[in-house]
Amino acid sequence: ADSEIIYRNSDGHVIKFNILTNETEIILTNTTFVNFNVAKYSVSPDLKYVLFAYDVKQVYRHSYMASYSIYNIHTREVWELDPPEVVNSVLQYAAWGVQGQQLIYIFENNIYYQSDVKSNSLRLTSSGKEGVIFNGIADWLYEEEILHTHVAHWWSPDGERLAFLVLNDSLVPNMALPRFTGATYPRGKQYPYPKAGQANPAVKLYVVNLYGPTHTLELVPPETLKLREHYVTMVNWISKTKTSVRWLNRAQNFSILTVCDTTTGACVTVGLRFSVLHSCSTGFLGRTPNQEPVFSRDSNRFFLTVPVKQGGRALFQFRADQNEVRHLTSGNWEVTKILAYDETTDDLFFLSTEGSPRRRQLFSVKTVGLFPRRCLTCELNKAHCLYIDADISPTKQHVILRCQGPGAPTVILHSFDTSNYYILENNSLLKAALKYKRIQVPDFRTVPTEHFDLPLKLSYPPDFSDSRHYGLLLLVDSAPGGQTVSDRFSLSWDSVLVSSDSVIVARLDGRGSGFQGQRILHEVHQRLGTVDVQDQIAAVEYLLKFPYIDRTRIAVFGKGYGAYLTLMMLKSTDSIFRCACAVSPVTDWKLYASAFSERYLGVPLRDDSRYQFSSVLQNVQALREQTLMLHGTADANVHFQHTAELVKNLVKVGANYSMQIFPDEGHFLSQQSHLHLYATLTSFYRDCLKEELL
Amino acid sequence: ADSEIIYRNSDGHVIKFNILTNETEIILTNTTFVNFNVAKYSVSPDLKYVLFAYDVKQVYRHSYMASYSIYNIHTREVWELDPPEVVNSVLQYAAWGVQGQQLIYIFENNIYYQSDVKSNSLRLTSSGKEGVIFNGIADWLYEEEILHTHVAHWWSPDGERLAFLVLNDSLVPNMALPRFTGATYPRGKQYPYPKAGQANPAVKLYVVNLYGPTHTLELVPPETLKLREHYVTMVNWISKTKTSVRWLNRAQNFSILTVCDTTTGACVTVGLRFSVLHSCSTGFLGRTPNQEPVFSRDSNRFFLTVPVKQGGRALFQFRADQNEVRHLTSGNWEVTKILAYDETTDDLFFLSTEGSPRRRQLFSVKTVGLFPRRCLTCELNKAHCLYIDADISPTKQHVILRCQGPGAPTVILHSFDTSNYYILENNSLLKAALKYKRIQVPDFRTVPTEHFDLPLKLSYPPDFSDSRHYGLLLLVDSAPGGQTVSDRFSLSWDSVLVSSDSVIVARLDGRGSGFQGQRILHEVHQRLGTVDVQDQIAAVEYLLKFPYIDRTRIAVFGKGYGAYLTLMMLKSTDSIFRCACAVSPVTDWKLYASAFSERYLGVPLRDDSRYQFSSVLQNVQALREQTLMLHGTADANVHFQHTAELVKNLVKVGANYSMQIFPDEGHFLSQQSHLHLYATLTSFYRDCLKEELL
Repeated sequence: ADSEIIYRNSDGHVIKFNILTNETEIILTNTTFVNFNVAKYSVSPDLKYVLFAYDVKQVYRHSYMASYSIYNIHTREVWELDPPEVVNSVLQYAAWGVQGQQLIYIFENNIYYQSDVKSNSLRLTSSGKEGVIFNGIADWLYEEEILHTHVAHWWSPDGERLAFLVLNDSLVPNMALPRFTGATYPRGKQYPYPKAGQANPAVKLYVVNLYGPTHTLELVPPETLKLREHYVTMVNWISKTKTSVRWLNRAQNFSILTVCDTTTGACVTVGLRFSVLHSCSTGFLGRTPNQEPVFSRDSNRFFLTVPVKQGGRALFQFRADQNEVRHLTSGNWEVTKILAYDETTDDLFFLSTEGSPRRRQLFSVKTVGLFPRRCLTCELNKAHCLYIDADISPTKQHVILRCQGPGAPTVILHSFDTSNYYILENNSLLKAALKYKRIQVPDFRTVPTEHFDLPLKLSYPPDFSDSRHYGLLLLVDSAPGGQTVSDRFSLSWDSVLVSSDSVIVARLDGRGSGFQGQRILHEVHQRLGTVDVQDQIAAVEYLLKFPYIDRTRIAVFGKGYGAYLTLMMLKSTDSIFRCACAVSPVTDWKLYASAFSERYLGVPLRDDSRYQFSSVLQNVQALREQTLMLHGTADANVHFQHTAELVKNLVKVGANYSMQIFPDEGHFLSQQSHLHLYATLTSFYRDCLKEELL
Repeated sequence: ADSEIIYRNSDGHVIKFNILTNETEIILTNTTFVNFNVAKYSVSPDLKYVLFAYDVKQVYRHSYMASYSIYNIHTREVWELDPPEVVNSVLQYAAWGVQGQQLIYIFENNIYYQSDVKSNSLRLTSSGKEGVIFNGIADWLYEEEILHTHVAHWWSPDGERLAFLVLNDSLVPNMALPRFTGATYPRGKQYPYPKAGQANPAVKLYVVNLYGPTHTLELVPPETLKLREHYVTMVNWISKTKTSVRWLNRAQNFSILTVCDTTTGACVTVGLRFSVLHSCSTGFLGRTPNQEPVFSRDSNRFFLTVPVKQGGRALFQFRADQNEVRHLTSGNWEVTKILAYDETTDDLFFLSTEGSPRRRQLFSVKTVGLFPRRCLTCELNKAHCLYIDADISPTKQHVILRCQGPGAPTVILHSFDTSNYYILENNSLLKAALKYKRIQVPDFRTVPTEHFDLPLKLSYPPDFSDSRHYGLLLLVDSAPGGQTVSDRFSLSWDSVLVSSDSVIVARLDGRGSGFQGQRILHEVHQRLGTVDVQDQIAAVEYLLKFPYIDRTRIAVFGKGYGAYLTLMMLKSTDSIFRCACAVSPVTDWKLYASAFSERYLGVPLRDDSRYQFSSVLQNVQALREQTLMLHGTADANVHFQHTAELVKNLVKVGANYSMQIFPDEGHFLSQQSHLHLYATLTSFYRDCLKEELL
């Protein structure tokens, strides 16, 4: 709320903190979590109840199945949340609404609603069918590639209406995930997964009103997309009855932003004459366009980021009433997130890379006059706080700043009016743990290539001396639109190699990576696995010129997209690398998700030469290095199929390889398997990169 | 026939050879095989037609799917063999009968019969259903563990009747084999596979008469087994209307031999008072009792091998009419196969280990008088022909001898009356290839243990010197009842290590192995993975006393059962082995086939402590050595499940391991994968066993 925040501190207590009085109150003690075996929790809007999730079982990246109970903070009474006439239910989703004790949950792909904790459940949909019709919850594709969450419903600000997607996967082919362990006769599972060129889920958007007798209305897609395959990539309420919706064609080269009246179902394309700004000849790379525009209360004005000719992504103000577009910022830097608009002061708050693509700082800009802009966090602790994420309070008086680097992450509450800072989490345990560890500040450089100077991050061993020779490990980490060279704090298995095994670790953001302007991002369009591979190799060649790099001890690592690049690099180089490791590699984009593969390589029709060209499976005899492959056999994201096809080809050409599997594990490994993975990687690269004593 | 044999020579021609005239005639030229893409062939009983199989696709160890055509030798006309109203059919089986042009084939689990190549097909059964009801063809269990062939039907000698099994697998749980490659959405397959303690296939035995209107009759099981689960392990026609049948209870500790009248369906237990001789308190180890007894023409006399108190397996003569049992041989050696009975001379022909368990020689014994016995092959080429298999001609005048070792295998035709030898296959190409290879004669030793002296076979590098130090590779090769130390010729990937990498290779036949007497065989009863493991370790300890064995360079290898023993050895030793490799290991007998697991460990009921004790999956933290695991992911015999469960446990305890998979391959690898496997094994052991230069 405006003057209160609720958070869980490092002791595990849930705290209510009053910003004005500086008073704290424990709402839930850490023992409650232990006693009720709580994995996740959320507090009701009226602060009277807590929803507990337990027996949580991960499904895909975001989604999970869980059982839920409701806890009365005052009476400590607890009861189960179950659909009518079901006991011990396992739900796909449950959460508070936006008012009082409104509750929503999803069971067997149908949405249920309770107006308060004690009222009866109302089933809002009935078409739900496992693996076929999804109401208010994403299927695999929408979760992983479109919405980046499993939640496919959105509350109106007053809690009176709920917008939700209905995904119909009845034509989507099912992929089989095998199961090997845990039973005498283990059974696999199937789920709809549209691979490149296959039938996609059909999407419809509905709004149901919850006060009084419910009725449900479809929000009608724009005329141009009605009869064509399309995605709904964003739904965002802009008033009690209006929502903004972004529709995207299947080829992902144009999108339409509409404002829909949820009382009639009619959707109007906004800023029609600006629509050229939303579409893009090379499609929406990096991510699907699901950025939420920020609207004024009267819906006549809204703010959006748009690529500009200087190379960056700038803030634009659209005034539908005046048919006017103005850019509030410009330059070769990117606005990464619009946070809030304060109509009383005409301040627009946003995060940007202004100053350095490695950083994220909080800015405000006046939406009037000469659009004066100011950085609100640039003077904050420069050693530890250069990469910031932020939440602005409803009255725009306060902000929660999450400093994510370069130092150990901290969370700070800041009031704009008093300029007070209050540290919510200092991460002192981690800081203490790191104090005596020999961790060097990374060295940032740029690799000059024909068209671009590309950022490189190097981690040196603590006792580094440029008269010695070091092994080099290249971490290929960034998927298109991602970033691996930044000021964000990170600490993982590779840090062990740096500090204990005197290995230099390098990371490069090559063409296709994000936050450095649209040109770099768009370079991979229609040619995944070419220019991005060349850049990684260029980085190695650049590093080989350093006298302290031992050119006989170069290794490479990648996971997912990075594993794809790793394998492509091995194929296009000749014994640069002594060894390589690929975790869950994509080896053929025809076998990967439609929405991703088609965004970069188009829909594979008669001519799939682009797909063939981008495939690891061609000419595998070039894969000569000592290669370790790791893959979970039940990976729902990058199917084990990718590794199996590669291995089959390696066997065919008689190439040696080594592998480890994670039986029945998915793309996101269990904690135990993570530990095993880290131990395997450290010892693999330690062996491979150790100095040979002659 | 009596004076003619048909065989395919090393040039690929199919030859008819007249024994009396020494004349040869080419029936089919090698080009015919190429032209029609023939993988398998057989000539009709009247020698007029050839059945060609093409597009052969292996199913399990013996079974395969194929398309068939019939070739007229005289006219060279070819036509397809298809069931009525089916084109381009893929059959489970097709073969000539025993008379003229009788043909039988199996399609969709039903048996079809043709009286000649041009006649219409008659469907003999109609209950066939894929994966459920099997007519005349084995399910996985009967093929692999009971009959040791996929053929589950038997012709009467005159071709007038056909006995066949009907297997009902409707209660047998299905195992899923995943599929990873070859399609965008690969589909796995399911098949009935009864694991230890699970529902077994129900078996019935029928006889159908084929001349005149067909009618089918069930052969009734013995009273004691009628209402109990049982197996039919052997069916053997002893006259035009009588067949001998062996029935075995599920626990596999008693079997009943009956003679069945196929005109009435009645089965009479033969030699009831000798039945104690067929059963055995410790069950039928090594193999299911499917040895075929040899009967006299009047069915009153039959011959059978039975374990004797001296330790061996002796020839017994049963005279049902006189209620008399006599043993024709005795001693600590084993009769391994009864070949034929010549009623005119009272000679019984058989193979035995008399002289040495490593050898197989052809003997005859008179079934009258003092049962004088003589060896018919002992004076044959002693350097190259000590391990013999043989086929006796119908008139007992001629024999085909297959010399399988110790030299390169040869095939010889021998006439008893003329004492002539005719070499059918000299294997000269192989002999020439080996001539300049440096292959040493193996060294046979015995390892003294507390109760037994166990045979050991050692292969030394060609330039062996006992003043040098050598690495040792132990090949753990024998399943219960099997034999790895013999005079049989063998040449595989391990020979490369011996001759090129100066590695000593050792093989031991420990307790549980066959052909050395019943006591050694029965030692593993109820305790798989204990005494047999101890013996392999004892062999290593014995070898460690040799001054020329480097105790820091000891490795072990096993496949299937051998891989099981390998892993059990690693668990019960402490860093004896530097490295180990396990191919398709069984890791838990509860997950393996009922008929095998139960034979050794009993049916797992309330108490499965024997199973737990025999499992690799317990205490895997003891598996500390550098272990490489290899497994086909579609192994229908030892499911990939075994390796997956082990890997899951290894990940749990943080143990390192390495693996290779053969995607979508079964227990029997493709040729390409075999090459890859051999390359992997040679390089793995080469690295592991190489002398470290300090």
